[in-house]
Amino acid sequence: MPKVLILAGDGVEAQEIFYPFWRLKEAEIEVVVAAPSKKALFTVIHDFEPGWETYTEKPGYRFGWVEMSFKDVKPEEFDGLIIPGGRAPEYVRTYPEIEPIIKHFFENNKPVAAICHGPLVITAFGLAKGRRMTCYMAVAPDLKQAGAEYIDREVVVDGNLVTSRAWPDLPAFMREFLRLLLEKRG
Amino acid sequence: MPKVLILAGDGVEAQEIFYPFWRLKEAEIEVVVAAPSKKALFTVIHDFEPGWETYTEKPGYRFGWVEMSFKDVKPEEFDGLIIPGGRAPEYVRTYPEIEPIIKHFFENNKPVAAICHGPLVITAFGLAKGRRMTCYMAVAPDLKQAGAEYIDREVVVDGNLVTSRAWPDLPAFMREFLRLLLEKRG
Repeated sequence: MPKVLILAGDGVEAQEIFYPFWRLKEAEIEVVVAAPSKKALFTVIHDFEPGWETYTEKPGYRFGWVEMSFKDVKPEEFDGLIIPGGRAPEYVRTYPEIEPIIKHFFENNKPVAAICHGPLVITAFGLAKGRRMTCYMAVAPDLKQAGAEYIDREVVVDGNLVTSRAWPDLPAFMREFLRLLLEKRG
Repeated sequence: MPKVLILAGDGVEAQEIFYPFWRLKEAEIEVVVAAPSKKALFTVIHDFEPGWETYTEKPGYRFGWVEMSFKDVKPEEFDGLIIPGGRAPEYVRTYPEIEPIIKHFFENNKPVAAICHGPLVITAFGLAKGRRMTCYMAVAPDLKQAGAEYIDREVVVDGNLVTSRAWPDLPAFMREFLRLLLEKRG
């Protein structure tokens, strides 16, 4: 069975870490969550009014399943990567050990899935140039500035790369990521 | 494809409604959420300290995908039923239209999955007698009083009935429910 890495940190969106984490476990796929350190993460929830006109951000669940710190990650041991959104991505990418991890997945054409603000971890290292991608609408300008072709759709698949806009897109996001992950092994 | 009903209300545990809802959509299975009325639900989150010694309950996401009120549910149109937990179940079962809905699934041996406090909607109508079941540990006494054989395990399957303890059991819960649901259609 394949083995999947999730890169997260405090401020990660609760649904965007829990859904992929439970979903991989449901499929009996090995999943490891790495974060700046091994302590539990504080997640946030992004709550929307019905009709989506306004939103709030508030403290969510504690996520107590962090298995390793970023500096202990050996990316060659993993077959796929997931980057959840929320506030975490803009901090996650500031750790120097993150760049070689991300680059490993792109250089080896392994499936990478990023949702919401997650794509900001990809743009940070110049890996979005010329890629068809989506992301949370509020950070679409950053994707475009980083050279990506931004598409407003629940999921965009471009080669090894799966991106989605936000947690209501989780069904399509995980369907496409699992398809790539299991195809590659098939 | 099968069609699944989720019965919920205000106070439903956020993960226990969202995971099944997204998961069924991921599998392209039709899913309908019914509640006392069609307005959005206030969900709660049950947060645990790492180590699980203490917990808190706090407001979670708004769930804006309620499609019908309880009184419009025609249970014969559905192939399976999911009852999420949180504070909702003890109120859900007080609506008189709920009893015939629940009984329809049991009498027709259709898959029923209940997690956390969800099993309280089953015990309320005398349907737990002699059934092997689990639930949230704090309501295990109520299951036993209602004549169920209580088992402390992530998932217990007894005929058409799938029960789990709480949201960290979601992977096993949905794996078993989907197995039953898709087998029956086989």
